[in-house]
Amino acid sequence: MIANEIRRLWAAGKPVANGWLSTSSPFVAEIMAAQGYDALTVDLQHGFVGYEAATGMLQAMRASGVVPMVRVPWLDPAAIMKALDAGAYGIICPMINTAEEAARLVSYMRYPPEGVRSFGPTRANFSAGADYGLHANGEVVCFAMVETAEAMANLEAIVSTPGLDGVYIGPADLTLGLTGRKYPTGFDREEPEMVEAIRHICDSAHKAGIRAALHCGSPAYAAKAVGWGFDLVTISNDVRLLAGAAQASVSGFRTALGAGSATPAKAAGGY
Amino acid sequence: MIANEIRRLWAAGKPVANGWLSTSSPFVAEIMAAQGYDALTVDLQHGFVGYEAATGMLQAMRASGVVPMVRVPWLDPAAIMKALDAGAYGIICPMINTAEEAARLVSYMRYPPEGVRSFGPTRANFSAGADYGLHANGEVVCFAMVETAEAMANLEAIVSTPGLDGVYIGPADLTLGLTGRKYPTGFDREEPEMVEAIRHICDSAHKAGIRAALHCGSPAYAAKAVGWGFDLVTISNDVRLLAGAAQASVSGFRTALGAGSATPAKAAGGY
Amino acid sequence: MIANEIRRLWAAGKPVANGWLSTSSPFVAEIMAAQGYDALTVDLQHGFVGYEAATGMLQAMRASGVVPMVRVPWLDPAAIMKALDAGAYGIICPMINTAEEAARLVSYMRYPPEGVRSFGPTRANFSAGADYGLHANGEVVCFAMVETAEAMANLEAIVSTPGLDGVYIGPADLTLGLTGRKYPTGFDREEPEMVEAIRHICDSAHKAGIRAALHCGSPAYAAKAVGWGFDLVTISNDVRLLAGAAQASVSGFRTALGAGSATPAKAAGGY
Amino acid sequence: MIANEIRRLWAAGKPVANGWLSTSSPFVAEIMAAQGYDALTVDLQHGFVGYEAATGMLQAMRASGVVPMVRVPWLDPAAIMKALDAGAYGIICPMINTAEEAARLVSYMRYPPEGVRSFGPTRANFSAGADYGLHANGEVVCFAMVETAEAMANLEAIVSTPGLDGVYIGPADLTLGLTGRKYPTGFDREEPEMVEAIRHICDSAHKAGIRAALHCGSPAYAAKAVGWGFDLVTISNDVRLLAGAAQASVSGFRTALGAGSATPAKAAGGY
Amino acid sequence: MIANEIRRLWAAGKPVANGWLSTSSPFVAEIMAAQGYDALTVDLQHGFVGYEAATGMLQAMRASGVVPMVRVPWLDPAAIMKALDAGAYGIICPMINTAEEAARLVSYMRYPPEGVRSFGPTRANFSAGADYGLHANGEVVCFAMVETAEAMANLEAIVSTPGLDGVYIGPADLTLGLTGRKYPTGFDREEPEMVEAIRHICDSAHKAGIRAALHCGSPAYAAKAVGWGFDLVTISNDVRLLAGAAQASVSGFRTALGAGSATPAKAAGGY
Amino acid sequence: MIANEIRRLWAAGKPVANGWLSTSSPFVAEIMAAQGYDALTVDLQHGFVGYEAATGMLQAMRASGVVPMVRVPWLDPAAIMKALDAGAYGIICPMINTAEEAARLVSYMRYPPEGVRSFGPTRANFSAGADYGLHANGEVVCFAMVETAEAMANLEAIVSTPGLDGVYIGPADLTLGLTGRKYPTGFDREEPEMVEAIRHICDSAHKAGIRAALHCGSPAYAAKAVGWGFDLVTISNDVRLLAGAAQASVSGFRTALGAGSATPAKAAGGY
Repeated sequence: MIANEIRRLWAAGKPVANGWLSTSSPFVAEIMAAQGYDALTVDLQHGFVGYEAATGMLQAMRASGVVPMVRVPWLDPAAIMKALDAGAYGIICPMINTAEEAARLVSYMRYPPEGVRSFGPTRANFSAGADYGLHANGEVVCFAMVETAEAMANLEAIVSTPGLDGVYIGPADLTLGLTGRKYPTGFDREEPEMVEAIRHICDSAHKAGIRAALHCGSPAYAAKAVGWGFDLVTISNDVRLLAGAAQASVSGFRTALGAGSATPAKAAGGY
Repeated sequence: MIANEIRRLWAAGKPVANGWLSTSSPFVAEIMAAQGYDALTVDLQHGFVGYEAATGMLQAMRASGVVPMVRVPWLDPAAIMKALDAGAYGIICPMINTAEEAARLVSYMRYPPEGVRSFGPTRANFSAGADYGLHANGEVVCFAMVETAEAMANLEAIVSTPGLDGVYIGPADLTLGLTGRKYPTGFDREEPEMVEAIRHICDSAHKAGIRAALHCGSPAYAAKAVGWGFDLVTISNDVRLLAGAAQASVSGFRTALGAGSATPAKAAGGY
Repeated sequence: MIANEIRRLWAAGKPVANGWLSTSSPFVAEIMAAQGYDALTVDLQHGFVGYEAATGMLQAMRASGVVPMVRVPWLDPAAIMKALDAGAYGIICPMINTAEEAARLVSYMRYPPEGVRSFGPTRANFSAGADYGLHANGEVVCFAMVETAEAMANLEAIVSTPGLDGVYIGPADLTLGLTGRKYPTGFDREEPEMVEAIRHICDSAHKAGIRAALHCGSPAYAAKAVGWGFDLVTISNDVRLLAGAAQASVSGFRTALGAGSATPAKAAGGY
Repeated sequence: MIANEIRRLWAAGKPVANGWLSTSSPFVAEIMAAQGYDALTVDLQHGFVGYEAATGMLQAMRASGVVPMVRVPWLDPAAIMKALDAGAYGIICPMINTAEEAARLVSYMRYPPEGVRSFGPTRANFSAGADYGLHANGEVVCFAMVETAEAMANLEAIVSTPGLDGVYIGPADLTLGLTGRKYPTGFDREEPEMVEAIRHICDSAHKAGIRAALHCGSPAYAAKAVGWGFDLVTISNDVRLLAGAAQASVSGFRTALGAGSATPAKAAGGY
Repeated sequence: MIANEIRRLWAAGKPVANGWLSTSSPFVAEIMAAQGYDALTVDLQHGFVGYEAATGMLQAMRASGVVPMVRVPWLDPAAIMKALDAGAYGIICPMINTAEEAARLVSYMRYPPEGVRSFGPTRANFSAGADYGLHANGEVVCFAMVETAEAMANLEAIVSTPGLDGVYIGPADLTLGLTGRKYPTGFDREEPEMVEAIRHICDSAHKAGIRAALHCGSPAYAAKAVGWGFDLVTISNDVRLLAGAAQASVSGFRTALGAGSATPAKAAGGY
Repeated sequence: MIANEIRRLWAAGKPVANGWLSTSSPFVAEIMAAQGYDALTVDLQHGFVGYEAATGMLQAMRASGVVPMVRVPWLDPAAIMKALDAGAYGIICPMINTAEEAARLVSYMRYPPEGVRSFGPTRANFSAGADYGLHANGEVVCFAMVETAEAMANLEAIVSTPGLDGVYIGPADLTLGLTGRKYPTGFDREEPEMVEAIRHICDSAHKAGIRAALHCGSPAYAAKAVGWGFDLVTISNDVRLLAGAAQASVSGFRTALGAGSATPAKAAGGY
């Protein structure tokens, strides 16, 4: 089985730069896989992506050597096991609120006797290697997302879950969960109470001997998070990168023409 | 039939900002359609896109009000008529080298008696309107690509083709065609001989009373082309925008970490 | 965020005419969206449709201005949240049998603090508007299906669920659930006990201050249901409309030929 | 090889009722195949359908015993041979204007020495039978569309093409081609000059010993065409049948409510 | 409703030869359906297949007369009911560990009053017959997979579940579950303790009056299992058959060339 | 640009073992790419595969290091250039009958000044390398299929076409073309006149300094062909390998049961 580069980077004391795919396009995945990320996550939760598209995306990024991960839609054994059978080397599971949920997550990811994963790595046998079954329990990584008030209340117990590799913070949900509508929704929180919460999760994970990961909106914030000790940082995603670049391109053109940076809003509809 | 905004902009003396889709993803098309372009072209020639994906892309961009265009793979009546039936408001046809080819292109796009287009606008009846058949000949726009030495030799005849709306320059092919391997391949030519050729095509089109369009790689060059008189400019494409933004994001992160702007090249699997 | 036309019609005292999509075809969705329905529901429960096809269907109907809804396969947070992130303005959830289930349904549809929906409206940010996150809790509508004996027993409690917008009746299941095999399966019930049950649900919903919806098989029955006070009626679906029209067309042809209205049954198999 | 029911019906002196698929949905094809048509044609010319969708449609209709046909986009050997390899039992080729074109069409459909079809019936070996190669030349049927002024001028020569099984009339194109914009576009022509032209084609085909087919919009007109001697009639298509039935359903509902048959036009765009 | 050939074979005292589809290709399904299997199962659990591909696979195998079955990913009412609505005549459900789970499985597969299946057999109405709703409860077959230590402990109770048609053994998981890492993973167990366990399950099922099925890797083992009394045997799958045949073909070629049976390992790109 | 392993093997005096894909499944492509072939060809001519599926297949086989080739449907610049832009390292073009056609084929594959290929290697820039444009003319290989009587008559001229890398023999078509219905259709010809023709083509190619390739049905024949001097041999395809292995598996099972090797033919149709 091909070794998981995420574990090698961590063993070498290096952070993991993770990219993010919210578009159901194998070619977008292939393009993103060529840009220098260490890992790349197919987002089956909030991405406009279903299982079937994910299979093509995983195939398209295979040649790049980037570590393929999947964020599953929910704590669901079917979704988790299908993602692993399809070749995912890491699972990010949203909305883990209790230690019991974290333990179920771990269980779904490991073959007996460590867990209850069912055996049948149909594609992983090809993409990861014919000896996948022997080594998968030790290679695939398992992140529980901590992003609610309930999860914060149970943080100590969650990070202590045997077999859990790390916690992954979704800052938008965490902010909603901890502060409601007090602040605008989004990543890259600067509010002291949110920064404190984020760093507290990171430190708690480290104390428990596991890893911490943070979803970021910009390279600068991601670098700051590494400075705080985060072991894996996600840096923006395909949708934001594309929309931002295209908008800047059009605005740049209109500005250069002296027409202002915006075109008048068209009445949508038609064609 | 919904009127073609490209014709309205031209009538108002304004240039058309065209975006470009080389990725077979309806969601990428929907995202790109929200960024302020006047028109958006699905590239069935060099894009990693086939007809079937194009249908979903045209549907996904419909709500935006952006004018949908298609670059067909070749001067082929089947491809041209299928793109029009699918709702394209403009066709860009590559590698038009003679006036005879330009005349065939026009013919494929117009219903009798102006041309030989076969009747059956299955989707256009819905997307453009139930009266599509009555107005299509006057609304859809028709671009012949001028991008070879042979086309340059026949330029006068090509631009004089009755019914042709404009010529569209592919600078990479034109440079290869006129100068062989003398210069690097690419858009946004700065070599005086190429600038001269490009401007000559633009002027020839205008003299013949038709429009001129240029494929550009950057907003700055596109704005310069408008200054030269071009009536439509394409500004980069989805693949370059995404790859550029993602690469800049990763590099920015690694630079901020002090790790240099590049990660060591991984040995990617081949082909 | 674009306002939900369903709420506007209700505020104006008008019923909502809902169409239904059981075929996984974006073009069928685009065609259906042009026929005058106020809303159109993608059926992920009994429809021959999965999530991936639903994404293309939602994109194809966007330009029409018809309100997009999704019937999810089950009370499952992953399915509900993915449908909402994909741009659904309404969710119809089958087999809600208790107030606790109704409360979970509401919870999955609302961002904190009203519920536990996770934040990440990847496509809705484009289709509904960039301010989707601020307004979604108040715009999207939430229907619990009442269609079992157990649900009837818990009706008072279900309709009193805070945040629930309405109940939606599936007459085929309700008839099976209340009367077993006593009557043939189907919509548009005429048996007094079933009419009474259906009207009782409608009245109970209204007493609780929420809306009532009914799945109908014909325009006449739908109109009758509006007369009973129903706020939303579904009128047939794409499969029945197409099959009915095609069968009538073939029968009409054979009858006109004097060959009777049916062709002899072919022994299926082959080609 | 399973025998072609079209030939059997003709041998028995019976007309063929052909259905038409313009929607790229295998399930729509499966539904249509259950409605009593003798044959069903996938329209790769004007249909919103590409080759890839056609493969699924042919598979979905196989069990029904309906004869599968394909209208190809153009007189193109690649398209014709791919449709045959995929299991089509009949080809309808648009825009055949000369005897030379008709002869090329025949040639593309027959293995040597009768024609130049390349051998490799990858799916037909399964759907039609393992002995497909031995019998295909005699089983598949070949229609040339006669639908232009040029074709009318060459009619005698076209119908005399050796190996051609029949001519197929596209009335919309034929009307455009013969009379320009004199009449509205559409099927089911009632103008005496068009009826005469249509019947003349039918009679010319019969004199030459081949079959005649007509594209019709209604069962009544199709029955009338059979009365004129037509051997195969196409009766409407999936798009028109569905749109017509849905529109009637909504109108029926609104009329029953006393709200008139139409809803006020919504400003399209949104959601 | 077309009768279930599996029940007919059992009634005649014959075993069922079941094929297995782990590849999301309708054409692979159509090819496999022509090879003589009595039944063919689409594996939505470990197969590289999602619901959307499964729809095309079920359509492609319909004409063959092979009984279509689905292994669902998990004990999930949505997945089970969608597979049945899509036309599956049998469901194999993994990881049934208790009688309560077996009872839920049965319940999801039967319409009231026998179970809680929701009514809406959208495709089954076409593929199985318009009277599907009347007969489905008695025709579709229901297998609970017994493949864990917990299931073995509850075996008596599981096989006694009213309405359950049979148990299905997954030998790889069962070996992992009963013996951990003591033996290599795989099918076709020869270890006495595993053979004993497998035969014990078979005998227990028969004592309880239900059927027993075994997943096998080879024809020889499948035949042996029939000798032990198994009522249905699965014989390998598409992935193994294809990979095995291709590898033998390449090895045969290289051996014939005198180059040894293996090519030097190429450095494949990872994951 | 990654070097073409086919050229390296030839330079080392070794034959190329080519696999063949007639199924439109990326996973089948990924499986086949792991079995030891040197090259793997996606068959867009007779394969049940269109362009859109081919894109996923090329992506899925990229990681394996197998050389990707495409057989295009016809001598069509659009199809050839799209296959190359998608990353094909070799093109096999059917039905080349004259030197003029061979010259056009070469021309479509090479950038100016060697040919007329249009520039825009959208995916090849990622899969083959960013410097693709500089080296593609020298790396991609170009095979003309010789498979008709006309081609045999023009053999000397065809093999002398400048820039052509080799000729590829389709034995089924060649046999039909040279001998009509005298022999059964198929590969692996043993008739002396066919063996002579096949070896004559091989020798003629070598005399002209180009390569010769043969489509074979078995490893033994492929090895014999290498003995005759062939430089590339195709060994069976995915459809035959799968069907053969599955049929042998079922027959083996039935034989072991003592039931004979065949099951009685079922009356197809149903389910």
